[in-house]
Amino acid sequence: MSQLEAFSAIEIITAKRNRSVLTDLQIDWIIDAYTRGEVADEQMSALLMAILLNGMELGEISRWTDAMIKSGDRMNWSPLSRPTVDKHSTGGVGDKITLPLAPLVASFGAAVPQLSGRGLGHTGGTLDKLESIPGWRANLSNAEMLKALQEGGAFICAAGDNLAPADKKLYALRDVTATVEAIPLIASSIMSKKIAEGTSALILDIKTGGGAFIKDPQRAKELAHVMIGLGKRAGVKTLALVTAMDVPLGLTAGNALEVRETLEVLAGGGPADVVELTLVLAREMLEIVGISGDDVERALKNGKAMDSWRQMISAQGGDPDAKLPVAKENLVVTAESSGTILAMDAMKVGMSVWRLGAGRTRQGETVQAGAGIEIHAKPGDFIKEGAPLYTLHTDTPAAFSRAQESLVKSVVIGNLPSNGKIDRLPLVVERITD
Amino acid sequence: MSQLEAFSAIEIITAKRNRSVLTDLQIDWIIDAYTRGEVADEQMSALLMAILLNGMELGEISRWTDAMIKSGDRMNWSPLSRPTVDKHSTGGVGDKITLPLAPLVASFGAAVPQLSGRGLGHTGGTLDKLESIPGWRANLSNAEMLKALQEGGAFICAAGDNLAPADKKLYALRDVTATVEAIPLIASSIMSKKIAEGTSALILDIKTGGGAFIKDPQRAKELAHVMIGLGKRAGVKTLALVTAMDVPLGLTAGNALEVRETLEVLAGGGPADVVELTLVLAREMLEIVGISGDDVERALKNGKAMDSWRQMISAQGGDPDAKLPVAKENLVVTAESSGTILAMDAMKVGMSVWRLGAGRTRQGETVQAGAGIEIHAKPGDFIKEGAPLYTLHTDTPAAFSRAQESLVKSVVIGNLPSNGKIDRLPLVVERITD
Repeated sequence: MSQLEAFSAIEIITAKRNRSVLTDLQIDWIIDAYTRGEVADEQMSALLMAILLNGMELGEISRWTDAMIKSGDRMNWSPLSRPTVDKHSTGGVGDKITLPLAPLVASFGAAVPQLSGRGLGHTGGTLDKLESIPGWRANLSNAEMLKALQEGGAFICAAGDNLAPADKKLYALRDVTATVEAIPLIASSIMSKKIAEGTSALILDIKTGGGAFIKDPQRAKELAHVMIGLGKRAGVKTLALVTAMDVPLGLTAGNALEVRETLEVLAGGGPADVVELTLVLAREMLEIVGISGDDVERALKNGKAMDSWRQMISAQGGDPDAKLPVAKENLVVTAESSGTILAMDAMKVGMSVWRLGAGRTRQGETVQAGAGIEIHAKPGDFIKEGAPLYTLHTDTPAAFSRAQESLVKSVVIGNLPSNGKIDRLPLVVERITD
Repeated sequence: MSQLEAFSAIEIITAKRNRSVLTDLQIDWIIDAYTRGEVADEQMSALLMAILLNGMELGEISRWTDAMIKSGDRMNWSPLSRPTVDKHSTGGVGDKITLPLAPLVASFGAAVPQLSGRGLGHTGGTLDKLESIPGWRANLSNAEMLKALQEGGAFICAAGDNLAPADKKLYALRDVTATVEAIPLIASSIMSKKIAEGTSALILDIKTGGGAFIKDPQRAKELAHVMIGLGKRAGVKTLALVTAMDVPLGLTAGNALEVRETLEVLAGGGPADVVELTLVLAREMLEIVGISGDDVERALKNGKAMDSWRQMISAQGGDPDAKLPVAKENLVVTAESSGTILAMDAMKVGMSVWRLGAGRTRQGETVQAGAGIEIHAKPGDFIKEGAPLYTLHTDTPAAFSRAQESLVKSVVIGNLPSNGKIDRLPLVVERITD
């Protein structure tokens, strides 16, 4: 690190520490110098903490996002005749919506260039889920991506090393320095990747509630507004839904278990909440690129979306007819009393899934394809004492005891209130357009 | 770094980020693990920024200080018959007070175990100043320190590597991450070294004004209260004076130049402000260990303090009669107009001294013994246009232009207000005892 550069890093940290607005030049310089290894990790982490505590204006976040995009390549789908549209979820327990959604939307003529990630912590990663399908591979060349979009209309693959490399380095640093939960950093991290991915339109699914990274609905809305602002400044049509993550989504959480549930949805069945959120998001994705979404529900029933899924999976080497992996061991957890389930804690379920081996603690760890939880009853359902509540799956039965610990008090069972309503978030909390 | 430890570091950073009070166990663990290299620099710098922005309670700062002391050795002067007392200044431009003060106080029977540091940035370091004396060495063994206290009553030497090693490592990190200016971190850094040094009593000279690290008198008082609290909890009698650093102290700033001024003070002369502050601090140091300071002024006049100085310098290999180094080149800067000097900016003078080669930018750099500034007129003095205001000294004349740039607008010359008073801080702004 040259002396001049060290001084600039200190000046920039000092400015944000003192609540100043960083200049464009300061932002461009520090992202570039950090990516090149000329600003030290300990300087960047001090700056990240100052950003977390003192905030950033939208103009700063936009420039920060641009600088991260410029640290790598920006993809370009202009040769395509189809309009591009993508969806991003901030992550939740049992959130497998991308899996049925991408082929469903593609089946209506849109192109869905979904560059996705792996899971870390209590929420699963889309690539981890798809990798439970025998033969499926997460890595595609740019030519393969273009071909997939032209022919089937959708791919879901790993982001290349040169897609916002500054974000990759920053994310790893945030992960060990307790600087993940800052709205400017979350927003710029997601949007840098989505803008670099080259999509023309984007629907954001911002999760809120106990099982989400952002538990407070007010903060989720704030994040939505910032991300929409970043999208608009970058010329990407962006809309956000703030959706419920107080309760797990669907009846499964875990990699192969969620693919199985996806197949139920694509076959016209599946849990009501997964179906409803898939349809809501599909209509938004189609509408934003000017395609009618009137028939999306029918496309789940008549095999149109399933055909699109089979094409997408096959194009990436996966066998859509292969038997999905099943964990070696399972254990049934039963209800401790009789009554109506009034609440189910998504975070506790997510932690248990993670402990069963479906998630990872550190980047690079392997995950178990078969591990996870089946949920047999959800809020609003009546359950009898001793009836099955969860089935836990793992290849490593030593994990059962800690997984069960996570589930202690994960449900509240009692009497339905006199108004007959469970106190929980609506599936779509708010639709935000600017 | 083991996984368990990485998790604990993240938990601790998260706690302080969320404004929680850190527990004793958390503080003990992170200081120890950081010193052993098991908590990464990027984690500690994120924590330091969270401390800077969210603060710490006195109990936390006290435990943090104790943990830094326990990272190394604590010295013990109990074999001595003399009571031990030390002074610490937070540093200012032209602040050479330690040099006449330590031998003066020692000449009255107290023992002054002064473990000191080198300068960084715009203020000089006591060791740098003394090293301009031919033969003088900054490193003493513990046995040499004890002998010096028993025989002469004072030493000024470098702190050993095992005196609060956690602080050394933290200080280097704070220096490059813009986390120097946090009261909990400043207070714990200074007090960990002073408590580990084994002194039974301590007088703090907290500088305030434009040339000080802490420019705002309110913040200087706040720092004083925190440091006194830390001293009391550690069983060290502690008292603080908040003193003026709006204007340079004395008429010289630079290493050998300040030793020369020290010799003038010890010979009964010297600038009034240096003499006054030396006497005020000497009386406080003696009073706090129960020795009468009535005769301190006389001791500067009658050679008693000078004898003590000669003994202290000789005991560390220095030749008190040697000619002091003089810089190779000098340049006179003159007044641009006639009038009364109404203000003199200590920071600008300090920056200029640093640029002349008397200070260092990075730890480990060498400094010039002869470099620095002589001041020919101070606030309150009348000066004529073209009369000498400063003489700049350096071995590297290329430094003159940047040193002169720093001095632009360093003085305000005008008409004395009708009340005849210059608007500046009193030499002692406040005396704080608890």
